[in-house]
Amino acid sequence: MTQSIVRRDGRALDALRPISLKRHFTRHAEGSVLVSFGDTQVLVTASVEERVPPHKKGSGEGWVTAEYGMLPRSTHTRSDREAAKGKQSGRTQEIQRLIGRSMRAVVDLKALGERTIQLDCDVLQADGGTRTAAITGAWVAVADAVAWLQAQGRIAASPLIGQVAAISVGMVDGAPRLDLEYEEDSGCDADMNVVMTADRRLIEVQGTAEGAPFSRGDLDALLDLATQGCENLFALQKAALAK
Amino acid sequence: MTQSIVRRDGRALDALRPISLKRHFTRHAEGSVLVSFGDTQVLVTASVEERVPPHKKGSGEGWVTAEYGMLPRSTHTRSDREAAKGKQSGRTQEIQRLIGRSMRAVVDLKALGERTIQLDCDVLQADGGTRTAAITGAWVAVADAVAWLQAQGRIAASPLIGQVAAISVGMVDGAPRLDLEYEEDSGCDADMNVVMTADRRLIEVQGTAEGAPFSRGDLDALLDLATQGCENLFALQKAALAK
Amino acid sequence: MTQSIVRRDGRALDALRPISLKRHFTRHAEGSVLVSFGDTQVLVTASVEERVPPHKKGSGEGWVTAEYGMLPRSTHTRSDREAAKGKQSGRTQEIQRLIGRSMRAVVDLKALGERTIQLDCDVLQADGGTRTAAITGAWVAVADAVAWLQAQGRIAASPLIGQVAAISVGMVDGAPRLDLEYEEDSGCDADMNVVMTADRRLIEVQGTAEGAPFSRGDLDALLDLATQGCENLFALQKAALAK
Amino acid sequence: MTQSIVRRDGRALDALRPISLKRHFTRHAEGSVLVSFGDTQVLVTASVEERVPPHKKGSGEGWVTAEYGMLPRSTHTRSDREAAKGKQSGRTQEIQRLIGRSMRAVVDLKALGERTIQLDCDVLQADGGTRTAAITGAWVAVADAVAWLQAQGRIAASPLIGQVAAISVGMVDGAPRLDLEYEEDSGCDADMNVVMTADRRLIEVQGTAEGAPFSRGDLDALLDLATQGCENLFALQKAALAK
Amino acid sequence: MTQSIVRRDGRALDALRPISLKRHFTRHAEGSVLVSFGDTQVLVTASVEERVPPHKKGSGEGWVTAEYGMLPRSTHTRSDREAAKGKQSGRTQEIQRLIGRSMRAVVDLKALGERTIQLDCDVLQADGGTRTAAITGAWVAVADAVAWLQAQGRIAASPLIGQVAAISVGMVDGAPRLDLEYEEDSGCDADMNVVMTADRRLIEVQGTAEGAPFSRGDLDALLDLATQGCENLFALQKAALAK
Amino acid sequence: MTQSIVRRDGRALDALRPISLKRHFTRHAEGSVLVSFGDTQVLVTASVEERVPPHKKGSGEGWVTAEYGMLPRSTHTRSDREAAKGKQSGRTQEIQRLIGRSMRAVVDLKALGERTIQLDCDVLQADGGTRTAAITGAWVAVADAVAWLQAQGRIAASPLIGQVAAISVGMVDGAPRLDLEYEEDSGCDADMNVVMTADRRLIEVQGTAEGAPFSRGDLDALLDLATQGCENLFALQKAALAK
Repeated sequence: MTQSIVRRDGRALDALRPISLKRHFTRHAEGSVLVSFGDTQVLVTASVEERVPPHKKGSGEGWVTAEYGMLPRSTHTRSDREAAKGKQSGRTQEIQRLIGRSMRAVVDLKALGERTIQLDCDVLQADGGTRTAAITGAWVAVADAVAWLQAQGRIAASPLIGQVAAISVGMVDGAPRLDLEYEEDSGCDADMNVVMTADRRLIEVQGTAEGAPFSRGDLDALLDLATQGCENLFALQKAALAK
Repeated sequence: MTQSIVRRDGRALDALRPISLKRHFTRHAEGSVLVSFGDTQVLVTASVEERVPPHKKGSGEGWVTAEYGMLPRSTHTRSDREAAKGKQSGRTQEIQRLIGRSMRAVVDLKALGERTIQLDCDVLQADGGTRTAAITGAWVAVADAVAWLQAQGRIAASPLIGQVAAISVGMVDGAPRLDLEYEEDSGCDADMNVVMTADRRLIEVQGTAEGAPFSRGDLDALLDLATQGCENLFALQKAALAK
Repeated sequence: MTQSIVRRDGRALDALRPISLKRHFTRHAEGSVLVSFGDTQVLVTASVEERVPPHKKGSGEGWVTAEYGMLPRSTHTRSDREAAKGKQSGRTQEIQRLIGRSMRAVVDLKALGERTIQLDCDVLQADGGTRTAAITGAWVAVADAVAWLQAQGRIAASPLIGQVAAISVGMVDGAPRLDLEYEEDSGCDADMNVVMTADRRLIEVQGTAEGAPFSRGDLDALLDLATQGCENLFALQKAALAK
Repeated sequence: MTQSIVRRDGRALDALRPISLKRHFTRHAEGSVLVSFGDTQVLVTASVEERVPPHKKGSGEGWVTAEYGMLPRSTHTRSDREAAKGKQSGRTQEIQRLIGRSMRAVVDLKALGERTIQLDCDVLQADGGTRTAAITGAWVAVADAVAWLQAQGRIAASPLIGQVAAISVGMVDGAPRLDLEYEEDSGCDADMNVVMTADRRLIEVQGTAEGAPFSRGDLDALLDLATQGCENLFALQKAALAK
Repeated sequence: MTQSIVRRDGRALDALRPISLKRHFTRHAEGSVLVSFGDTQVLVTASVEERVPPHKKGSGEGWVTAEYGMLPRSTHTRSDREAAKGKQSGRTQEIQRLIGRSMRAVVDLKALGERTIQLDCDVLQADGGTRTAAITGAWVAVADAVAWLQAQGRIAASPLIGQVAAISVGMVDGAPRLDLEYEEDSGCDADMNVVMTADRRLIEVQGTAEGAPFSRGDLDALLDLATQGCENLFALQKAALAK
Repeated sequence: MTQSIVRRDGRALDALRPISLKRHFTRHAEGSVLVSFGDTQVLVTASVEERVPPHKKGSGEGWVTAEYGMLPRSTHTRSDREAAKGKQSGRTQEIQRLIGRSMRAVVDLKALGERTIQLDCDVLQADGGTRTAAITGAWVAVADAVAWLQAQGRIAASPLIGQVAAISVGMVDGAPRLDLEYEEDSGCDADMNVVMTADRRLIEVQGTAEGAPFSRGDLDALLDLATQGCENLFALQKAALAK
């Protein structure tokens, strides 16, 4: 890896941006985390609702689901407000489905009982990696919501059966980079979002050639880098919960 | 006024909640203000767009407009996301129309030139008074956007011809109260939102009997209290801009 | 008040337009009133439905609500049909919420029982003041629907606990005018819609600066004029019901 | 035809209900007709617009089109407002397409020039036959709009090349009836709407078996009756225009 | 009838296009028929669902209903996908209502029991007559679904009380033609869709003047031709079911 | 790989289902392919349109995009028609975005010129793998549309710069399987869709843990199997085009 290439913010190709996970950012939600990956800021709330969607009714199992949105001026130039347009874009729907699947992979729905943890991931400021920041923060918000349920005596054992984080990686000018910011993401040849558990197993791997198709070798290098990035995130999540 | 009545947070009947106006809260928008009235927190961004809506095309005049939204879990219990429902509620539309009118009352659209200042008011946390907080913060965001336009050399003189703030007042148990929080707002007999200029002229007065109709005397008392509240807000806005 | 200013139709600044309230205009509805304020004509029907919206189910209380619409060519130039566009404008929603609140202020929902009075206010011809005409006519339609309920033996005592009417007032060229027609409304500096009860108490006061902000003195003059106008309307409503 | 069968309102099986065509019912539209077929009342306005839909742009030809709606309480029990539901029913769309086709069949679009006559047919009260009343009234409204265009000097010769009216007929208890009211329409075996020109040619024939399928003989009897009904309507349209 | 006029495909004016009815075209549906009228190809599936729409709940009766769609490139030039536009056109709604009514005319809803036969008619390739092909194919699909219900032992006797087919006819250059293809349909003076039962009774007759209005004589000639066409279709339907 | 495990249809774990690619399935589209992967059948049409979306206007470059839909009864139990519901699901949008990206990766948009190739992928019958069948068939449809453009003389050289196919793979009971049918897909632990070029480079890799997260080793085994499957598909695509 050619470390001489300078990134806009001076960090190494295999370095994360400064990460922060502020818990209890708002006061109504059972879990509320402001997660920052550099200039990307996402407010994630986890709401406990004592009901489940129709396909889970009477199953004895709960559900975890997510919605995602960007404030209109979270981006460089203002985007239309989806509520005003009257529909969510395909991109929005892809991301919220990804967040939901990622969280369900580490929650035992039986142990959760017939209730829903509803995640809301709202991007206050965007600079690349909003979906990976959202997933990383969502896990902390879910942990807080689960702790609240236990404190309330509604569940005995925690249904949280794993730890999950996500990071983006990409090939830029032939070299793999970790945690792309917006400008890097726009200019890369291939990018990949990786959702991983703390025991180094994979929940989602989404690799996309933006320009030229990529090789198996590229894929392997990107996965190595993502693994390293996620390990840092697991430590930061644990530190946030320990406070 | 019976000052012996204790409010939930201990303040006097004619006292505002702690107010803060944090400028430059996000970095992309030309104006970006996080305004707090106690636990009510609204992120207001002002975006400058070099185009105008159809009814202003070729007029030589600009436009100022606003959109409003609440994050789903800004409230005590989660509300449905308007983007997911596919339409904005009547309440949302009323509020965004009010914010837009209030700002246009203090902007000389001719002097602004054929461009739009688009305000986005997103409630991060709600505890009553979100529309008055939004208007009060929006004026600061507009001022920053106007300053940016001047710094860019796009306009010479400022089109900002007045200062505007807004506050809610209401009759609770027969006595007028300033700056209602959510619980007071739900239980009051009459509430009024007042949008005022720094020279004590009125832009909007919206008084509503929630329970029993109110008298002219009540109306006068409420307007007096609102006037006093707005004067405090004018000073706070100026202090924020002076930083 | 300078009475020398001539209004388009020759009436005095403090005079209402010719008002009419034709009951039983259509035959299916429990209450059906064609209300005219000059050239403004609104058909108001009150429908009794033996069900309530979800938030009232099992409460033992009823509900009163309103919808509002304009026929596409009720206006000078044709407006798009809201049903064809697939959504109601913000203005439409504001008005129908206002009508509903105004009626609920004079109906004892407990005494109404678990049923709904659904108002439909459809503007056949528009010339300013459609919302005030709608409210003034709606009260008569509600009274007819209540009488029908009593005649049917469904309720014993009348749940109608007050009489309500509404009028618009505005500052035009520095002088207050009563009951603005469309052209006056477009050109005024400030206009106000006042919803009032027969015992001179206020249900709604909505004052808006269209041009320059207005003073407390202006507000007082407008309220005085509105009070006088509503007193005439109360007499006309009673006369209509007496027929 | 067994004339001993008594219809609800006492008229003969081959008699129309009382018909009225009130011109200039509202004042903004270029043509405005309140048409009544007994208790069925439809307000039809014709609006002249100096533009054409995309498929006619630059063609030198004009367009005639129609929209249709029912006020929510025009019916026995209240129907949902289509603007509130956010979409028009299939029935509404069928009817407005039928009205548009019927009018275009008697207007020379070339002679009309590149402009649109937009019809709005709003049912104030419904008692069967709203589409036939709408078509019959629409022809008068179009005639008034055409006369207005000529009076304005915008067109020289009239583009109106025929006279059109419409009536419903149906088999009830084995006998054909003219101009069905709502109750007859609901209970009939087959009903047919016929749109006809004054020279006894057919524009539309829509026959539907509601219960058992009908024979060619039934069809012939119904067409005979419809022809007779339309001839009465042509005379009434001419009389209305002569006033 | 001048048989010397040559049709594009060489057939006589009173000849059908080659018709085929392929049963079991797809394997999931209880009835699945690919019906071709020349180049017009419609896939009709009949799905049995053990539920009824609200207006039939508890009635002991079933329901038969239909939906219709065209694949975007079934047509000469691509049409917008209705799912992407977010609404079905008026034409689509007219056609699906027609198919539903036609099928209900030959199904005894009481004998069907409280279940629904849901038809889906999707046009794979369009060349005129899609609605008549759909109806003709739908009857075969319904017959298969009914046979499936009997084979399953869910119903004893067949609720199918009649046989139905449909064909288009039109006046082209003054002569009646059977089974119009797209180009003929576009250029005809009048066209008519006829839905008929095997005992020569009529379910629907929809005649429309596209250009000049048509005479009673034309109507009679068209109905004669349609009757002849439908008799051929009845034989083909029976042959298909006999395989 | 334990080859003793029997798949429902008897094929080996590393075997594709029977694949067919029928060109010219419908006659209007410039490319039209019915692709079958076993019981999964997708009709893919490629339409050439001489216009581009707004973001490409004036760029000199063309565009390739895709829409996807399932016929309501293509599935085991009927799904709601998206056109009737008024919106496309998140799944639909994800798939159509994936198909579009995959095709754009092998088309030189500059060489295509300012025109659009619009793909429509409609599932006639579904049994797992609809998106991979769609992509595999879409490449053939694009090739036919490109050949048509060349035959028409609209473009000189082919803009098709690569060959692309797609296949699904998944871990079922701890062993990797190729080309999952519906039942296998529902029951697998992890599945992956791989979009690949004929020179063994990757366009998209989407791996998802449905049950337990998967290891890097699993990922590698799945990619190996997918590579082998795609190579078979490349040969079949070439054979289809050679006919």
